[in-house]
Amino acid sequence: MGDFEAARKEVRPADAAAGAAAAEHHRRLAKPPGALGRLESMGARLAAIAGAFPPPLPAPAAVAVFAGDHGVVAEGVTPWPQEVTAQMVSAFLAGGAAINVLARQAGARVAVVDVGVATPLPDDPQLWGHRIRPGTANLRREPAMSPAEAAAALDVGAEVAVRLVAEGARALVTGDMGIGNTTPSAALVSALTGRPPVEVTGRGTGIDDVTWARKVTVVEEALARAGAHPNDNPRWSHLSRSEQAERNHLEPLRLLAEVGGLEIAALAGFVVGGAAARVPVVVDGLIAQAALLVAAALCPPCLDYCFAGHRSVEPGSGVALAHLGLEPLLDLDLRLGEGTGAVLALPLLEAAARILSEMATLDAAGVTAKE
Amino acid sequence: MGDFEAARKEVRPADAAAGAAAAEHHRRLAKPPGALGRLESMGARLAAIAGAFPPPLPAPAAVAVFAGDHGVVAEGVTPWPQEVTAQMVSAFLAGGAAINVLARQAGARVAVVDVGVATPLPDDPQLWGHRIRPGTANLRREPAMSPAEAAAALDVGAEVAVRLVAEGARALVTGDMGIGNTTPSAALVSALTGRPPVEVTGRGTGIDDVTWARKVTVVEEALARAGAHPNDNPRWSHLSRSEQAERNHLEPLRLLAEVGGLEIAALAGFVVGGAAARVPVVVDGLIAQAALLVAAALCPPCLDYCFAGHRSVEPGSGVALAHLGLEPLLDLDLRLGEGTGAVLALPLLEAAARILSEMATLDAAGVTAKE
Repeated sequence: MGDFEAARKEVRPADAAAGAAAAEHHRRLAKPPGALGRLESMGARLAAIAGAFPPPLPAPAAVAVFAGDHGVVAEGVTPWPQEVTAQMVSAFLAGGAAINVLARQAGARVAVVDVGVATPLPDDPQLWGHRIRPGTANLRREPAMSPAEAAAALDVGAEVAVRLVAEGARALVTGDMGIGNTTPSAALVSALTGRPPVEVTGRGTGIDDVTWARKVTVVEEALARAGAHPNDNPRWSHLSRSEQAERNHLEPLRLLAEVGGLEIAALAGFVVGGAAARVPVVVDGLIAQAALLVAAALCPPCLDYCFAGHRSVEPGSGVALAHLGLEPLLDLDLRLGEGTGAVLALPLLEAAARILSEMATLDAAGVTAKE
Repeated sequence: MGDFEAARKEVRPADAAAGAAAAEHHRRLAKPPGALGRLESMGARLAAIAGAFPPPLPAPAAVAVFAGDHGVVAEGVTPWPQEVTAQMVSAFLAGGAAINVLARQAGARVAVVDVGVATPLPDDPQLWGHRIRPGTANLRREPAMSPAEAAAALDVGAEVAVRLVAEGARALVTGDMGIGNTTPSAALVSALTGRPPVEVTGRGTGIDDVTWARKVTVVEEALARAGAHPNDNPRWSHLSRSEQAERNHLEPLRLLAEVGGLEIAALAGFVVGGAAARVPVVVDGLIAQAALLVAAALCPPCLDYCFAGHRSVEPGSGVALAHLGLEPLLDLDLRLGEGTGAVLALPLLEAAARILSEMATLDAAGVTAKE
């Protein structure tokens, strides 16, 4: 049994009693009931995740940046050359990328994981080497990878999560790097939410109209090739809604292999690994949300452990979050990836926990009850 | 010349050249242009505020919690007894309130300023005693205070800002405490944005429908008494739009005296004092936003120095922010006040500054330019 399957079997729904204890405590604190809004529900969720009231601080956190390449760049879906993936991996290791700056501020560790970079990387003891293959195949023409490779990437993600928690992380943050990875992410979001590619395909690093139109076509053709049409694809319009929906229920693992990515698969495993370890997992933008859709399909209770760090500019981000029922903590027009939007949300989680353990009650503060 | 007037005369528009240098630097950093979204514009604003590129870190911050009471509580606009203002002041001094917890996490100092609490307070060397009068008069029936008292409160706010910066604060955060203070805030927002009381009056600490309807009437009658009708008040419907608008241009100082509050006036002075000292001022929810409307009317360039920490649940909060052209950093359904929503936004400001000073450029990271 691989690391992913072991983790998947260990995930339990979060502890509702601990969550209720936190919510009850909030009603006694020195403030009007409900006045701390979403900090209150976050605090209750943290208690439920840890199975403890008050919940432990979700700190220190660890960010895992999973890097992988994408054969679909051959279709011209991005103006950035593929070697930028490896160059950014080097930047992460050197500590100068955005995620390094933001993680340092948050007191979070950054683990850089090669799960499928196409360009050779220099030996670096800091790099976690788990390359499964040097980038995926071109998902427009053929499966991005085999189901066995997708399963191996899930294992890598789960293993990284377990190791980071064993080494002291009390919250996990999803990070990603992979030139071209908004294309497989859009395909996964489309297939798993039933929304058409044109609604969930965005501009990634900032592409022009012509490139965007090509990208939409690539996503449509990849889904058609894999037999994973979103509900309202015109090619299925002669079928009933329920028949259309049925066509979309490829097994999640096969879908991941057909139109996913190595770092996306690893992220799905990472989320499940974090849930198995009962720590909060803060999910970044579109790529991580696509991975979370896969993780939730494979292991529904893992959602109890997830916070959506932010809503990205990518249209698929809002679609994925709505489908998952997650409200993002931040909405700052970010579209960088690397885990940047998720790590920025960490202080809000910490605040939610500190309020529950450090704030005085109405009684202790000697505040007269309202009439 | 009082502290407020001295500060007002010192406020200069922020330095556009420093802001442009920051924006230009963002185009060179190791990421797609614009990918850090609002962190990029925040960084440019921080540079413009400091008149320096890269901008200094906006840390440590200081929160000033201005406390005052409101004679309008006699109208039954809130179920909380007036003495709760003084009790919460004691809680702030003891360090157990929400703002203390969140400020500690952010490494921010908390200054508690009595600018008009009605209940006697124990002697405490930590308390900044600047009481102008023991609470305002009932603004439904008579002016809340005299113009001289409003001016004195503006002076207190400006003086506190100047002192906190002199003692090391590199960012200021607005805080407030005053049972009943959403009522004068709604009146100010209505008068200064021209929106009717029913659209900007909220439920404060969580009042029922009957109390809310009474509160709307109180705001309407206070504005009618003061001659400060919002544009679409039916009593002015026989006038042209421009004549209606003219009726609303009470001098801001007189408006503040008629329907404002002591802590609200102090907050307006505090914002202008921070702008004069060229530090960023992070503004909290409805009460601070009402104060900012007054400050911007008295000293328009002070807006260059302000960040909206969050949008509160209060309907007047969204209205005030839209009128001021400020986009809130957070939107977490908070409605506590004390400065809680603003202090939660501090890590985002710090992140915007750190990105500009710590992140590698594309060149330095050896990243190949896009095609």
